Amino acid sequence: MTALVAQSTDALRDRARTLSARLDQLRAQGLKLDLTRGKPATDQLELSNGLETALHGDFRARDGTDVRNYGGLRGIPEARALGAALLGVDPATVMAAGNSSLTLMYQTIDAALHFGLWGDDCRWRATNAPVKFLCPTPGYDRHFTICQSFGIEMINVPMTDAGPDMNAAEALVAADANIKGMWCVPKYSNPTGCIYSPEVVRRIAALPRVAGPNFLICWDNAYAVHDLEFPPPMLASISDAAEEAGTSLQIVQFCSTSKITYAGAGVGFVAAAPDVLDRLERFLSVQEIGPDKVNQLRHARFLEGRIELHMRAHAALIRPKFDAVLERLETGLAGLDIATWTRPQGGYFISFDTLPGLARRVVALAKSAGVTMTAAGATFPYGKDPLDRNIRIAPTFPSLRDVEAAAEVFTLCVELASIDHFLERRGAA
Amino acid sequence: MTALVAQSTDALRDRARTLSARLDQLRAQGLKLDLTRGKPATDQLELSNGLETALHGDFRARDGTDVRNYGGLRGIPEARALGAALLGVDPATVMAAGNSSLTLMYQTIDAALHFGLWGDDCRWRATNAPVKFLCPTPGYDRHFTICQSFGIEMINVPMTDAGPDMNAAEALVAADANIKGMWCVPKYSNPTGCIYSPEVVRRIAALPRVAGPNFLICWDNAYAVHDLEFPPPMLASISDAAEEAGTSLQIVQFCSTSKITYAGAGVGFVAAAPDVLDRLERFLSVQEIGPDKVNQLRHARFLEGRIELHMRAHAALIRPKFDAVLERLETGLAGLDIATWTRPQGGYFISFDTLPGLARRVVALAKSAGVTMTAAGATFPYGKDPLDRNIRIAPTFPSLRDVEAAAEVFTLCVELASIDHFLERRGAA
Repeated sequence: MTALVAQSTDALRDRARTLSARLDQLRAQGLKLDLTRGKPATDQLELSNGLETALHGDFRARDGTDVRNYGGLRGIPEARALGAALLGVDPATVMAAGNSSLTLMYQTIDAALHFGLWGDDCRWRATNAPVKFLCPTPGYDRHFTICQSFGIEMINVPMTDAGPDMNAAEALVAADANIKGMWCVPKYSNPTGCIYSPEVVRRIAALPRVAGPNFLICWDNAYAVHDLEFPPPMLASISDAAEEAGTSLQIVQFCSTSKITYAGAGVGFVAAAPDVLDRLERFLSVQEIGPDKVNQLRHARFLEGRIELHMRAHAALIRPKFDAVLERLETGLAGLDIATWTRPQGGYFISFDTLPGLARRVVALAKSAGVTMTAAGATFPYGKDPLDRNIRIAPTFPSLRDVEAAAEVFTLCVELASIDHFLERRGAA
Repeated sequence: MTALVAQSTDALRDRARTLSARLDQLRAQGLKLDLTRGKPATDQLELSNGLETALHGDFRARDGTDVRNYGGLRGIPEARALGAALLGVDPATVMAAGNSSLTLMYQTIDAALHFGLWGDDCRWRATNAPVKFLCPTPGYDRHFTICQSFGIEMINVPMTDAGPDMNAAEALVAADANIKGMWCVPKYSNPTGCIYSPEVVRRIAALPRVAGPNFLICWDNAYAVHDLEFPPPMLASISDAAEEAGTSLQIVQFCSTSKITYAGAGVGFVAAAPDVLDRLERFLSVQEIGPDKVNQLRHARFLEGRIELHMRAHAALIRPKFDAVLERLETGLAGLDIATWTRPQGGYFISFDTLPGLARRVVALAKSAGVTMTAAGATFPYGKDPLDRNIRIAPTFPSLRDVEAAAEVFTLCVELASIDHFLERRGAA
């Protein structure tokens, strides 16, 4: 196809009419489709029904703990081993917690601010200086919401195909001692789907050497095993890189089984250097007696030795949905020079960029035809995409048929909004 | 028996020699007994094994929610109904949460301090004024730890057999506007076991009228259904009393199934007026996506219509342990005028008072004979029992045989420490 910008005004008007007519047809169908949610579909949840019978009435953990009783804030050994396997770290550095890694992230930031992850004097709120965080963008809105809730000022760092732009990150950190941390979703980044390169992982691990001793890398490895291709691509170990850089105390890693077994009824994990884990445990001991160890044992028994098998089954269900979206985007938009998008090898999202200034318009247009997209801007701190162009596509939850229908509407809306934009610029709308 | 104080010095010396000899015998047995933990015993946990099969592969909540997927911060309808049944409140006022009511209490205090339970301007930390809390004593150490972690100053209010001394509480609140709340364990209070009288409940509900609009009653109804006698005694409704007093916005109630089903793997609940629950939900939405709804559904299905039956089964297992302790105390100490203790109709504890100044000594003596008691002072804010006399006895977790053995050691230690005390006072030690 010819780039839209190179097409004649008449050709664009013709095309706009065709697309508008088609959009009206689609509107008349009363679609109610939703591509907003990074949620597993029901058939994915069914893969974990074996959890319910994983215990067989045996409630003793490997170390003799009766998982039905109180205690054990750090989690049972087999659950910690499960978290270690997911994150690729030493089980001794892992705490197996409740149902949410998001909660662990919130608690970690809370502890760093008010309690001190490296001792009382290292509390970020020990002084009145502002606390700032680096936020690779586009990124995960819930990370940003945590920062906002604590009044942490967020600074955008552009994402590249290999991870955050480390030249930018290093320069920012060198220039401002109030920057105390950085969010990272290193594998199948939310939403771009990229995997941080070994070079980027190495430079992130070295960042605290520039930033200072109470700088924290929040390594949210949410999609550690959520591969769509096998053998899966490898993420370089942040633990190894940190050990080399002498920054192990500055790295906290997170993951959960939420998109492995049941979403919201799984087990969350946090990994950190022993001293940091001790501090976190002390902080948490005020607000909880211990995690749900029964669910931990269920998960450990159910997943032991079969994580990849299980994730292959997920991939078999969701890969066709990713393919359907990507195929539709390719068919409808390739060559028009009005959009770019990612082709992730795993994770839960496709990141889509319109022409600058059109994301909100596209989302509104799709909404008018019954297709709900994640709000434009949601992938940026404070909900503000400076170029108004990024849209996160989440294809896992709807049925394949609905994904196909939604992708058609979306593609059409992107083209139509882009044509309108060109016509307006030519004063020919 | 004759009161110790009235006995001759020679008689006391004789008795001390007998007791010391017996204590040495017991020490030689190498006992390792533990009366510290308010934990259910294994046979109690077995009562809930049916939880594991309560779902029968049906993961749909009453409202159609697939409990295996994300969302629903307020909990599923049947879990909220369960919490409402436990607390005796309207299900519309209940949030069914994760595995810990302690966590809900921490979060509620956190929200009241930093977010505002009644709007942004009502945050307790909106100004730099100190925040203070009334703490009925003896009380629950984990309540005190929450206050301490937030720098909330704690003020002791003496407990009576009918609940907190409300004359004291009302006078304190009237005199100091910085007192922002009060802890209450209204039924089978931890550790005294008393049930707040209807009069006390009414006066607590009216307390915010004196204290002001951002005063919070933390109503931790941890032992709402944990009866040892049937039909069980009734606790007056704080909701009804608050409605009458016009203070419904100032009451937040808590409970959990931790000592009903599995300790630490159950469901926690918080109940509050709709506006307050909305605020709390907004506060929590930053740190979690939703509770473990699978476990909520398990619990709702397992307990529906059989809470009393289930609690009667618990009572059958733990009442003999309470009786063993009480019988031993009665046999060993009645008439000596050196101690008082409670005879609870439910809950998990017996509260024991030595002569002033002897609690630490008794605990240390028992420890020397292999019997671990809760640290003296633990039932008071900052771990400081001003009279050094309260000891919390938790008889549920050990076997009946161990409870009997531990009660013997404890009783002996109380008498021996008291005799030593009298002899010292007479200069005859």
